[in-house]
Amino acid sequence: MGRVQTRTVDQRRVGRPRRPVLDRRRIGEAALALVDETGSFTLPELARRLGVQTPSLYHHVDGRAGIVELLREQVGLSMDAGQLDRRPWDAALRGFFRSYRAGFAAHPRVVPLLTSSAIRSPDVLAAYEKMLVLLGEVGVPRGEAMAILTACENFVIGSALDLAAPDVMWELPDDVDAPHLAAALAEQSGPDHRADNAFEFGLSTLLASIAARSSSS
Amino acid sequence: MGRVQTRTVDQRRVGRPRRPVLDRRRIGEAALALVDETGSFTLPELARRLGVQTPSLYHHVDGRAGIVELLREQVGLSMDAGQLDRRPWDAALRGFFRSYRAGFAAHPRVVPLLTSSAIRSPDVLAAYEKMLVLLGEVGVPRGEAMAILTACENFVIGSALDLAAPDVMWELPDDVDAPHLAAALAEQSGPDHRADNAFEFGLSTLLASIAARSSSS
Repeated sequence: MGRVQTRTVDQRRVGRPRRPVLDRRRIGEAALALVDETGSFTLPELARRLGVQTPSLYHHVDGRAGIVELLREQVGLSMDAGQLDRRPWDAALRGFFRSYRAGFAAHPRVVPLLTSSAIRSPDVLAAYEKMLVLLGEVGVPRGEAMAILTACENFVIGSALDLAAPDVMWELPDDVDAPHLAAALAEQSGPDHRADNAFEFGLSTLLASIAARSSSS
Repeated sequence: MGRVQTRTVDQRRVGRPRRPVLDRRRIGEAALALVDETGSFTLPELARRLGVQTPSLYHHVDGRAGIVELLREQVGLSMDAGQLDRRPWDAALRGFFRSYRAGFAAHPRVVPLLTSSAIRSPDVLAAYEKMLVLLGEVGVPRGEAMAILTACENFVIGSALDLAAPDVMWELPDDVDAPHLAAALAEQSGPDHRADNAFEFGLSTLLASIAARSSSS
């Protein structure tokens, strides 16, 4: 907050220099905080938080879709795209998908905004390019690559939401008769790592399926 | 709207009969519409939409968590839990997960609310019970059942968000050099069914993994 106030003082001193006080990074950070809190954003709301007029935002971003891309870049900052330079391929994908899950899990309310808007951010597209290079190296047929990659991502995104979920996700009231569910909950191995266990099981399954797909090509 | 107005007239005629004008179904429908539009809800906002005072809601639901359970039930109404009575087991799970994906895809903004709140709804718990009966019949070890089921659900939920996504999900600007991504997008088989292809690939992979897990037990 102190930093924001300092900038406001600067702004007054030199007139109305819109650009110095606003940049894409600051807009992205404010938008992420707003969506984390409220589950959504509007341009006027975001402008108010930044202490600027709404039209000022348009100097930096291409309207609502531009803000969503900033949100994507902000969330992406916490992911480790460098993992995609590792080899063998499965270590690269496993490492990246783990950091992908963690990044999205920290901002679950941003997820539906990101998944409902086309991807245009160069940094994010560069990560896709690397994933496709990996699949190509493994020998996955090119025509199947997007479906396989999308299936993995769907799983990672769902797993991120699950990681953000409560440890106790099923509450059985006394009047509900569900003995199989009760037994499965009581006997789950490593209940302290409920979400991690599910994620690692699904991730290994999908990576094994990629390996199988490549050897059959 | 006509129906709501009729009820308002009734309400005036007989005084202030809170219960006749409000029921869980109406609250759930209004909450779902509110979250679909805005990505979130507050109890005062919901009460305003229903034309009642906020405390009236507490006659029907247990606060915010209660509203989330109503949302879960509302979304669940469009799923076909009857699929879980089918046999063989994989037809049951495949059929149910398809309707699960469709139900969530129709309400993508509700997803983070549902995944971040414990499940207490008897109807929803009954569906879990049936899934666990199925996994038991297949021979999945009980201690692994929750992790396997959660992995499948994570995938289905991510796939629902993907089904609600644009058909063209990757936009390559001219200044982005991503030849592998461009080729994979150009050569994907059945691009008209982008989301369906990814879903069916991942679902088949996970179901095959369940079958393998059971035969090894």
